[in-house]
Amino acid sequence: MYFKNIFSFLSWLKTYEKSWFKGDLSAGLTVGIMLIPQGIAYAMIAGLPPIYGLYTAMIPQVVYTLFGTSRQLAVGPVAMDSLIVASGVGAIAMVGSENFIALAIVLALLMGLMQVLFGIFRLGFLVNFLSKPVISGFTSAAALIIGLNQLKHLLGVDIHRNNQLQYLLIDAYKHLGKINWPTFFIGIGAIFIIVIFKRYFKKFPASLIVTIISILLVYFFRLDHYGVKIVGTIPQGLPLFSLPHLDKKTITNLAPIALTLALIAFMEAISVAKAIEAKHNNYKVNANKELIALGLGNIVGSLFHAYPSTGGFSRTAVNDQSGAKTPLAAVISAVVVGLTLLFLTPYFYYLPKAVLAAIIMVAVFGLLDFKVPAQLWQYTKRDLLILNITLLITATIGIKEGIILGVLLSLGMLIYKSTKPHVAILGKVPNTYLYRNIDRFKDLEVFKNILIIRFDAQLHFANTTFFKDTLYSEATKKGSDLKVVILDGESLNNLDSSGVYAIQEVLKYFKGKDINFYFTGLKGPVRDTITKSGIISEIGKQHCFMSIQEAVDYYQHNNINTYKKKFTHQNNN
Amino acid sequence: MYFKNIFSFLSWLKTYEKSWFKGDLSAGLTVGIMLIPQGIAYAMIAGLPPIYGLYTAMIPQVVYTLFGTSRQLAVGPVAMDSLIVASGVGAIAMVGSENFIALAIVLALLMGLMQVLFGIFRLGFLVNFLSKPVISGFTSAAALIIGLNQLKHLLGVDIHRNNQLQYLLIDAYKHLGKINWPTFFIGIGAIFIIVIFKRYFKKFPASLIVTIISILLVYFFRLDHYGVKIVGTIPQGLPLFSLPHLDKKTITNLAPIALTLALIAFMEAISVAKAIEAKHNNYKVNANKELIALGLGNIVGSLFHAYPSTGGFSRTAVNDQSGAKTPLAAVISAVVVGLTLLFLTPYFYYLPKAVLAAIIMVAVFGLLDFKVPAQLWQYTKRDLLILNITLLITATIGIKEGIILGVLLSLGMLIYKSTKPHVAILGKVPNTYLYRNIDRFKDLEVFKNILIIRFDAQLHFANTTFFKDTLYSEATKKGSDLKVVILDGESLNNLDSSGVYAIQEVLKYFKGKDINFYFTGLKGPVRDTITKSGIISEIGKQHCFMSIQEAVDYYQHNNINTYKKKFTHQNNN
Repeated sequence: MYFKNIFSFLSWLKTYEKSWFKGDLSAGLTVGIMLIPQGIAYAMIAGLPPIYGLYTAMIPQVVYTLFGTSRQLAVGPVAMDSLIVASGVGAIAMVGSENFIALAIVLALLMGLMQVLFGIFRLGFLVNFLSKPVISGFTSAAALIIGLNQLKHLLGVDIHRNNQLQYLLIDAYKHLGKINWPTFFIGIGAIFIIVIFKRYFKKFPASLIVTIISILLVYFFRLDHYGVKIVGTIPQGLPLFSLPHLDKKTITNLAPIALTLALIAFMEAISVAKAIEAKHNNYKVNANKELIALGLGNIVGSLFHAYPSTGGFSRTAVNDQSGAKTPLAAVISAVVVGLTLLFLTPYFYYLPKAVLAAIIMVAVFGLLDFKVPAQLWQYTKRDLLILNITLLITATIGIKEGIILGVLLSLGMLIYKSTKPHVAILGKVPNTYLYRNIDRFKDLEVFKNILIIRFDAQLHFANTTFFKDTLYSEATKKGSDLKVVILDGESLNNLDSSGVYAIQEVLKYFKGKDINFYFTGLKGPVRDTITKSGIISEIGKQHCFMSIQEAVDYYQHNNINTYKKKFTHQNNN
Repeated sequence: MYFKNIFSFLSWLKTYEKSWFKGDLSAGLTVGIMLIPQGIAYAMIAGLPPIYGLYTAMIPQVVYTLFGTSRQLAVGPVAMDSLIVASGVGAIAMVGSENFIALAIVLALLMGLMQVLFGIFRLGFLVNFLSKPVISGFTSAAALIIGLNQLKHLLGVDIHRNNQLQYLLIDAYKHLGKINWPTFFIGIGAIFIIVIFKRYFKKFPASLIVTIISILLVYFFRLDHYGVKIVGTIPQGLPLFSLPHLDKKTITNLAPIALTLALIAFMEAISVAKAIEAKHNNYKVNANKELIALGLGNIVGSLFHAYPSTGGFSRTAVNDQSGAKTPLAAVISAVVVGLTLLFLTPYFYYLPKAVLAAIIMVAVFGLLDFKVPAQLWQYTKRDLLILNITLLITATIGIKEGIILGVLLSLGMLIYKSTKPHVAILGKVPNTYLYRNIDRFKDLEVFKNILIIRFDAQLHFANTTFFKDTLYSEATKKGSDLKVVILDGESLNNLDSSGVYAIQEVLKYFKGKDINFYFTGLKGPVRDTITKSGIISEIGKQHCFMSIQEAVDYYQHNNINTYKKKFTHQNNN
């Protein structure tokens, strides 16, 4: 029981069905083959030698299979995190230097430790604060930055790596005259082939095909003599254990980047894991366990020269579509990468960097999100604005800045909206017991002595002034006929202490004007507060009703006849 | 029309009734007399010579009468702001030095400018973010700090001015052996007299009485020769116009203090103004105009040697209780202060500082708030926690820190609560059309094929995961009998884009399980979003009902008989 709780793999291993193996094998091979060029390409994004991409493609996913709760998540190097590694570590050490490599590996260790801690302290819920518009804007911006950073390899020119869109574009424009045409044609050709294959021959691993074709082309025509940059030597053999070097200064320098990565990487993994879980529904993804599993993957990975990894969008989708039923598929992928490391690395010597750029550009172009903005345009300009601001800031100022501003804007909007909530004056739908907004429904019955008002928000410190002002001004509009105010509590979801004081003021105000005040349809938690705070005794228990109709009946009977106690009063159990 | 809009005094001057004058005169004289010792005492809190307190008691309130929208607000020096002046300016210049005085006056100018700008840009709503617990905790803490800072004068010892409770207490403890007993007895005697008068002879101006008695005592017994510290020379004459000296460095240094003061001073004034407005109800306080009026009071005041002022709690209450009907009362108070400045200042020479300390200590003891914490204890431990944290941080770390943390905690709590809102599973109240929480009401009718669920919050990015998880787990509990899920929309106050995507996922999930999904009682704004986002076409317009009962009837009839279109469907107008 306890073991199964920690080692998630026990739960699927014990019930493993023979019929699953075909899917796992097919998915494992497909993803494994996909990982070779992707691993090399993502290492290039991160500013690392290709071999580190392959190490990262191998180790973390094996660790993940032991502890992870998703059965299809494909863990390994991903484009966005590679970009963050490049920009973060690049600010401390020269990209590609020995020190840079060492720091990228230490970064994986730190990030992994943070993820494990976050998981233990159950902070997985933090990812809930990333709203759809923020994720969409952020992803599109990151895709733009990653894609444009590849222009350098695609054009064969010397554009500086940068995380700010505007400088990338300016720099690219300046270098337009110096394009290396063989490089450019190889790159464009690769893009063309991948796109065609993706559209018409989905079954074939397009990136592997362009990899093989381009290696052969360069080898036979010696295109490297014509300025086509190639990958060069990739060492052979499996990664060896070695302890990353940690000192206080390194930790201080890397901590903010590690934190950003820990959260962003988790956000990527959990969103794709949840999406795939919804499709399968025979297991449950646990956010905190995912954090621990991904974190352990990074920690163990860093002991074997891996740089930061997480669950990626595209490979997970391919893994699932290829039939993966359990993490056994991931073990098979890791074996494929391991075999490549042992026997095949020399064959990648002539692989042109332009082809890697092509693979990356096609992949990230798929991440550019046009669908969500188009949908938001239909029904919420506010969320669209948040999306666009997040996109703009992420693309032109920085990844961290974009995501932080996006989250703050989302929270700000949430609070702002609740400070001026929707308020409805209700009238009776004729011949029913239903009361609806008089501004939205026609032919409602409105009583001249009764103001029925609905406040569509919890009542809290930041909207009590609005609540009072609205109530008073609506009461004033009714004029001197007004005898009773009915506050419909069905949408009043909560009441904090400022709300309690506001209601007490309101009661006093109406009492001073000899106007009765009734509550209807209060929810349980609000009833509790109303009772414990003593408001109930100020208003009188008999003035709290289950429904608006009862309150109206009570007032009308009470005024016309003598009062007969025949109404269901709301109780407080 | 336009003039009246700016010069608020036109609105009461034109309709001035003769009967009002008696009240205005009596209140004006009372507050004016009260202002003399208070002005001197608050100047002492601020670390300024007494005369500046009198200048501040005179000028700003005259300016306020022209533009202010409250008719009873008494503007002048107040304890809390004086404390902030002392601590803020004290960090830049030596308390009591020429430079210190000049900076305190410039501070009023800067703060006034900020208030006017805030008013023009309609930022008065910002004060809504101060919740009751934060205001209560903050006020109590400030009262403690102000009161304890007076121990120095009350004991006649040399305790350093400090804004941190712990150091004040330690310092006071260290000096216990050096108490100047004549000073101490005068102070304690004054406190005793004021308290007695406040309780039994409310009509008499207690602080004026102790002021006069103590002056006579010191004068006749020459107590100043026995170590009793006295106020000393106060210059005679009205304040003269002079431009405060402004340079860039001063502005940079003072800007943060000015900002704190601008907001805190406004908060004090607007809360007391609103409270008094609620009593009278023949005029309306406008937050943004108040900002402008208070700001102009500070600006003009600073040109006549006044330091930061605002509307104070206690004097406003006295003003109102003494019968003030219009700001004419404030003009009369200003005249009293003016006459004092012209003719009476020499008589305050022998006023002992211990008596001023006594006046301050009794006043701020009244600000210590025990009522609100006692009430919160009854019904909301969360808000009580926020109150106590605000109090503790304000008292031990700093005023700004306390208030900022309090606001952030309140906002955090607001968001936190809405991420895990109350959810109710509903059952039918027998023989009614009402549906209530099955956990709170007994003997409700529950249908085995129907899950009726109510989510008591707006659906937004930070609670969509909780929403989905809850819905799925409740559906699972129902088992295979479940045929239809009814989401009661009456408490679903809003729907952002993340909420829309969540609902789409939910619809897909239940469709995959062949379970129907109905909406009931959706509010207008949510209906708009449901329509524009296209959810309506996924769910089918016929599956949106006005009430739960209709949805239940629809399902039951639809399954038992053939469906007859006899139900009122919710329309979208």
